[in-house]
Amino acid sequence: MSGPHPPHVPAYRRLTVDERRAQLIATALRLFARHAPEDVSLDDVAQLAEVSRPLVYRYFPGGKQQLYEAALQQAAERLSACFDVAAEGPLSERLGYGLDRYLAFVREHGEGFSALLRGGSVVETAHTTAIVDGVRRSAAQAVLGHMHVRRPGPWLRVAVRAWISSVEAMSLISLDEGELGLAELRDYLVDLLVGQLMVTSAHDRQTARVLRAAAELEPPDGRVATLLERAAHAVATEPGGS
Amino acid sequence: MSGPHPPHVPAYRRLTVDERRAQLIATALRLFARHAPEDVSLDDVAQLAEVSRPLVYRYFPGGKQQLYEAALQQAAERLSACFDVAAEGPLSERLGYGLDRYLAFVREHGEGFSALLRGGSVVETAHTTAIVDGVRRSAAQAVLGHMHVRRPGPWLRVAVRAWISSVEAMSLISLDEGELGLAELRDYLVDLLVGQLMVTSAHDRQTARVLRAAAELEPPDGRVATLLERAAHAVATEPGGS
Repeated sequence: MSGPHPPHVPAYRRLTVDERRAQLIATALRLFARHAPEDVSLDDVAQLAEVSRPLVYRYFPGGKQQLYEAALQQAAERLSACFDVAAEGPLSERLGYGLDRYLAFVREHGEGFSALLRGGSVVETAHTTAIVDGVRRSAAQAVLGHMHVRRPGPWLRVAVRAWISSVEAMSLISLDEGELGLAELRDYLVDLLVGQLMVTSAHDRQTARVLRAAAELEPPDGRVATLLERAAHAVATEPGGS
Repeated sequence: MSGPHPPHVPAYRRLTVDERRAQLIATALRLFARHAPEDVSLDDVAQLAEVSRPLVYRYFPGGKQQLYEAALQQAAERLSACFDVAAEGPLSERLGYGLDRYLAFVREHGEGFSALLRGGSVVETAHTTAIVDGVRRSAAQAVLGHMHVRRPGPWLRVAVRAWISSVEAMSLISLDEGELGLAELRDYLVDLLVGQLMVTSAHDRQTARVLRAAAELEPPDGRVATLLERAAHAVATEPGGS
């Protein structure tokens, strides 16, 4: 757009409007992944996408805020799709697979979005907050779907939401501290859900049914079966019980 | 300050600087408790405190942002003090008592601060985020203190932080939905910690020790003992085990 490209830059290809838009959003995602939103400018996007600044503004007349929201929206769609995994096999495997995708995305795009999830970001608005809430809601929906629950009562809803908040908090903490590896963290988060369902079962029959049905699909010597057994023994200070 | 008061307003009492500051912060807290920060003005504070607007500005030259941060700081100190309860008796009772205070505070001051915890508030800055993070850190510290843990390993730190994030998420959800009563929510949150410690015990010996020591102080027919027993049975689809 602004004169001939230097020789090392690929020649300008005429993209469709949708392709160009997608290219700019993808470029923005890469930048927001590595830098806090306040440190990213439209110039950076133009430079990395090898287009002119006016072109970026033509697609995103609302400036950085609009570009950021578009990038966040795309990230939200990808995050929401994490738990869209085949509805077969043990629950722990499905969620483990979903968590692998979720944690990989957070690790890859973490810097930028963790600022947003943590709050205090300059680009944060009621709209961005709604996008982030939407991811939480669709993750909860997907988890309940894998449990074959169409009408969750308050206890099961609360248990799943408590788990989603733990997943989010843990993935942010793992970005900061990095003491636990991704596979270790994934297994722990699956275990955490099992633990939350166990205690919720003591309050709620629907949750107990869901947990029993899920436990029946677990391989008898698999992680979850072992966990349930170990958890029962972790506190066995005396033989008692029944 | 601005001429004689109308008859129905109490006569002006000369407060010390600290008293006046405390009065204005207390007034601000009451306002921020019922309204989103964007809907509170310094005029409202002046009117409710029955002082002139210039007086409010003299104490808070930074305007609403400064007043908000002072109010948030005080709220944070009160929230951080919630788990400063007597270091005796079963862990579940201590935490239950701390949770009663925490949940009562959130219920009383919820509207305003939930906007902040949720993000997207106009008064949110890196500074307010740091204050909120400080509450999380001191809550985690207090919980570890009640567990008599001075050097938590990564697993125990992660378990306690996961619990704090659940407490926060659940208290916000309860503001929105109000399906669970405060006492029910408190008991559930204690149970959730027990569940999280159970599953973390399967990964980590320090956590297993902490849970065993805590379980020994629980009354044998109390909530937690019953929970541990019920949880073990919630998934007992076959006799096997041990």
